Amino acid sequence: MSPKITTELLKQLRQVMKNPRYVQEPVQAYIVPSGDAHQSEYIAPCDCRRAFISGFDGSAGTAIVTEQHAAMWTDGRYFLQAAHQMDSNWTLMKMGLKDTPTQEDWLVSVLPEGSKVGVDPFIIPADQWKRMSKALRSAGHDLVPVKENLIDTIWTDCPQRPCKPLITLGLSYTGVSWRDKIVALRSKMAERKVMWFVVTALDEVAWLFNLRGSDVEYNPVFFAYAVIGMNTIRLFIDGDRMMDPAVREHLQLDSTLEPEFKIQVMPYGSILSELQAVGAGLSPKEKVWLSDKASYALTEAIPKAYRYLTPYTPICIAKAVKNAAETEGMRRAHIKDAVALCELFNWLEKEVPKGTVTEILAADKAEEFRSQQKDFVELSFATISSTGPNGAIIHYKPVPETNRTLSVNEIYLLDSGAQYKDGTTDVTRTMHFGTPSAYEKECFTYVLKGHIAVSAAIFPNGTKGHLLDSFARSALWDCGLDYLHGTGHGVGSFLNVHEGPCGISYKTFADEPLEAGMIVSDEPGYYEDGSFGIRIENVVLVIPAETKYNFKNRGSLTFEPLTLVPIQTKMIDVNLLTEKECNWVNEYHQKCREVVGAELERQGRHEALRWLLRETEPLARVQ
Amino acid sequence: MSPKITTELLKQLRQVMKNPRYVQEPVQAYIVPSGDAHQSEYIAPCDCRRAFISGFDGSAGTAIVTEQHAAMWTDGRYFLQAAHQMDSNWTLMKMGLKDTPTQEDWLVSVLPEGSKVGVDPFIIPADQWKRMSKALRSAGHDLVPVKENLIDTIWTDCPQRPCKPLITLGLSYTGVSWRDKIVALRSKMAERKVMWFVVTALDEVAWLFNLRGSDVEYNPVFFAYAVIGMNTIRLFIDGDRMMDPAVREHLQLDSTLEPEFKIQVMPYGSILSELQAVGAGLSPKEKVWLSDKASYALTEAIPKAYRYLTPYTPICIAKAVKNAAETEGMRRAHIKDAVALCELFNWLEKEVPKGTVTEILAADKAEEFRSQQKDFVELSFATISSTGPNGAIIHYKPVPETNRTLSVNEIYLLDSGAQYKDGTTDVTRTMHFGTPSAYEKECFTYVLKGHIAVSAAIFPNGTKGHLLDSFARSALWDCGLDYLHGTGHGVGSFLNVHEGPCGISYKTFADEPLEAGMIVSDEPGYYEDGSFGIRIENVVLVIPAETKYNFKNRGSLTFEPLTLVPIQTKMIDVNLLTEKECNWVNEYHQKCREVVGAELERQGRHEALRWLLRETEPLARVQ
Repeated sequence: MSPKITTELLKQLRQVMKNPRYVQEPVQAYIVPSGDAHQSEYIAPCDCRRAFISGFDGSAGTAIVTEQHAAMWTDGRYFLQAAHQMDSNWTLMKMGLKDTPTQEDWLVSVLPEGSKVGVDPFIIPADQWKRMSKALRSAGHDLVPVKENLIDTIWTDCPQRPCKPLITLGLSYTGVSWRDKIVALRSKMAERKVMWFVVTALDEVAWLFNLRGSDVEYNPVFFAYAVIGMNTIRLFIDGDRMMDPAVREHLQLDSTLEPEFKIQVMPYGSILSELQAVGAGLSPKEKVWLSDKASYALTEAIPKAYRYLTPYTPICIAKAVKNAAETEGMRRAHIKDAVALCELFNWLEKEVPKGTVTEILAADKAEEFRSQQKDFVELSFATISSTGPNGAIIHYKPVPETNRTLSVNEIYLLDSGAQYKDGTTDVTRTMHFGTPSAYEKECFTYVLKGHIAVSAAIFPNGTKGHLLDSFARSALWDCGLDYLHGTGHGVGSFLNVHEGPCGISYKTFADEPLEAGMIVSDEPGYYEDGSFGIRIENVVLVIPAETKYNFKNRGSLTFEPLTLVPIQTKMIDVNLLTEKECNWVNEYHQKCREVVGAELERQGRHEALRWLLRETEPLARVQ
Repeated sequence: MSPKITTELLKQLRQVMKNPRYVQEPVQAYIVPSGDAHQSEYIAPCDCRRAFISGFDGSAGTAIVTEQHAAMWTDGRYFLQAAHQMDSNWTLMKMGLKDTPTQEDWLVSVLPEGSKVGVDPFIIPADQWKRMSKALRSAGHDLVPVKENLIDTIWTDCPQRPCKPLITLGLSYTGVSWRDKIVALRSKMAERKVMWFVVTALDEVAWLFNLRGSDVEYNPVFFAYAVIGMNTIRLFIDGDRMMDPAVREHLQLDSTLEPEFKIQVMPYGSILSELQAVGAGLSPKEKVWLSDKASYALTEAIPKAYRYLTPYTPICIAKAVKNAAETEGMRRAHIKDAVALCELFNWLEKEVPKGTVTEILAADKAEEFRSQQKDFVELSFATISSTGPNGAIIHYKPVPETNRTLSVNEIYLLDSGAQYKDGTTDVTRTMHFGTPSAYEKECFTYVLKGHIAVSAAIFPNGTKGHLLDSFARSALWDCGLDYLHGTGHGVGSFLNVHEGPCGISYKTFADEPLEAGMIVSDEPGYYEDGSFGIRIENVVLVIPAETKYNFKNRGSLTFEPLTLVPIQTKMIDVNLLTEKECNWVNEYHQKCREVVGAELERQGRHEALRWLLRETEPLARVQ
């Protein structure tokens, strides 16, 4: 990976920052967040403005350009990648380290007195605007909305906004009709005494209407907003997608419906003016519910006194708790995904010793095997196929410049997943195709112990996921090892592979309590810069647990792994496992054998089945 | 415990809430927080206004009285106690439970439109004022400062504010002179570019000047404020305490000093006017540093643009990291404390079967044995001496109405501690003087496993204590048990038994990272309402740990128990312990034997020594 040369681009950006054609007054700093107008994590090429200006294309990061400086804030997953992708114009701000200034503090330290700091009001979430604006104002500066996106003005070959066909999902996939979802949403609105709810997150629009799209790579979503009133439904969406008969039928656009279920379709670009009209027409006590992460522009459309902002929307919370149809779909998707990975690992085992398999080839092969499975749609994120030192780059994606050949001498880490029409997968396995060193096995085993500690944890109903994060680290900590990322994230059901409002991370305190039906990942790791990376990730379902005393009837929860892919026993130092941990591995492998074995058999994949049977031989403790 | 009858008092309070002699306009609600003007947790009798109006005298709680209602917010430690102490005029608001409204939400739900809510501006911390005021304003109400405390107007026999002599502490106790502390404080002030620092917390004043007092029971502090400038030191304190030659000598009041170390002594009551004068005389960029928990009244004395507020003051953070002299003092204090408890438990073992020992007698006896130790000053908190069902009242204090007789059939829980001139102790032991049931042993053993999990935890330097809280619960959770309080709090060095900024609790996210030299408690528990309480508490010192890989030189930390009192092996179900846990208990007991045994020997306490030796026999695992 050679860094992007940004000298000329930064010069151009600094010019438009002073150009009265674009800014009312010159701005001394311009903030380029990584999101789009929906605060999406994964974004369409036309929204990759931060990557365009800096070269750094990881999933999280904020660029700030001043007349003198250009700085990039990102987190531990991306320190190495960002350092590789950015040229010397850029300063890397390593978030989470003690001495790294916040964006606000840094701005205050570098700006001349009375500066204006510009940002696109559609891109910055309202809560970030508020915090940033307050901090800047208290230091004598101003945060100002710049309506025209300044990156777009210098991005001459910016791609078009995608507008691809939609997929309709029937009840067998979703379990609940969009009408029933609207009814449930309106009842939550009535509870909170709000008259309107504005759906701004793309996955929330998709979930609410039981539709999927492919406007954003990896995330089956489409560009749209919705505004739900107590008696009206407005869907803001572009293109001829609403001409598709299947979509019209699904949304009952041509049926005679009760007026409160009649969907009014409007142009995507009219959301701001429509919302301003809603805002202008409110009577006292009529509140409008928005996520506090909705854009500053949309939030401002509603007068302050009428806003009802919450960190998590009722859709976000409802979407997180999977119903029986969704859970069963997720199970099916994970079995198919396991079949593909058994095929892949069996193939790798034969091919790697020949020295012909590169990271990119392995990733392609994984996609090939997945695409053979029923209802495969696309990958759920860019495959992290990394060997040796590349494994230490936590969110590495192989490109020709970095593409390394797998060998019997290096650890191989594969973090990959797919979208199937019945579910979303995300799995990481760390393999050695030769003989791992004692140190590699030791580190792997600590990571495994952490993985098991979370997966087998029992906790009272209502516990927040962040309280489980340290369980994943305890075994590593005992030896003086740690990893610089959270332990788990929510996973959508044929939706975004990362979703709120729950997760398992030391970094948050505002996650919603875990409840049965939620689905999260469990993915501790260990990374040795310049040498190797280890991560063991399963997607797990929150289920009721049986405990002796059941928390005085408060209820007990635990996790059930949905991912059913063997964990390489060759990498395990069995003597470091407790009996309980050893049993966990053996029971997990037994379940892989039974469930995935049956499917491999059914699909006639006999060689992969033999691989599975061999890889799931029970561990025996030697001591 | 019979509840306090408050009908008449509430009637009087509701009258003064409308009396123009005390309020500019009638207030429809009046808030009575539990603190004093220094936001102390433990308060002098004259400041026990919330207890006076409600009857509930636990250490934490906020009362709110409206024309129709009287409600009390308190946390899980006090649910039972508050329910017992308050009459039917009061509604108990159980904080931490899902359905309990916040004070703000409750006020909004019960107040008529456009209400005024009054509070004493000296008692309410600025951060609470801000939050409460904002929430009320957004619902159309107003939070208003009521200068005269309305409780004081109806409290006819309110005791006088104490004004007791001071104790001076030499270098052998404090390790650092007050001059050097001032120098260090000024350097922190220079770093943050502030010109003034206002010391409002009583323990911070005491720590800064190496003085102790006895104005507040259990906390060796005295009523005072200090305002530190870059060249001035002002101490606001009443009485003839500054006439004591030892104090004058200690503070060098009569010496020729560089002007920046000359202490100006001023009347306690002049703090507000002096601070207003400071506030009025500030030039641009001259900031004044206050805790964001300082009172609203003092915070308002400084114009908003000049305030520099932080959750933890530099004194709070410096005070938490004990130096060698303080650590050694804490060790000595804990050895003496252990001697007293060995004597007590030996005595209880003989006396309890006779049926003559009550909770109060046991507590008195504990105090008697402690008072025989060198440099004993007073207890560090009200002794929790509780047997059987009383043990389930988490912060129980025996009074004649509840005083239960210890027996060989019930669990006895003793949570007690003392102030010695060289250190502060806080220890809980749970004992059975007969034969515990299998269930009691099971619960005790889970609590012990949690205690050990925290005490033996290894974690990277910079870890916040709240990340360790779940370790204490894991063994309980596995069986469906939990406890409704945090796991640990900071402990002062001959200072408050509860101090910030570190702790071990699921409830906070804003604690400062743990570092070597900090001292916290480790006290998981389990409580069965109506039956028994179990808690095992040691005070532990954060120390560097030896780990194999040392977190890439970030450094490793762990805990060393300072408390050295046997944990009753009779209560342990050895088969539930791992080998590692078993070894921990045996090594801990071995250390008790060596260190406390030597001191018992030295003090000629041979019977207690024999008790110690018997109670510290190694556990043997049977399996």
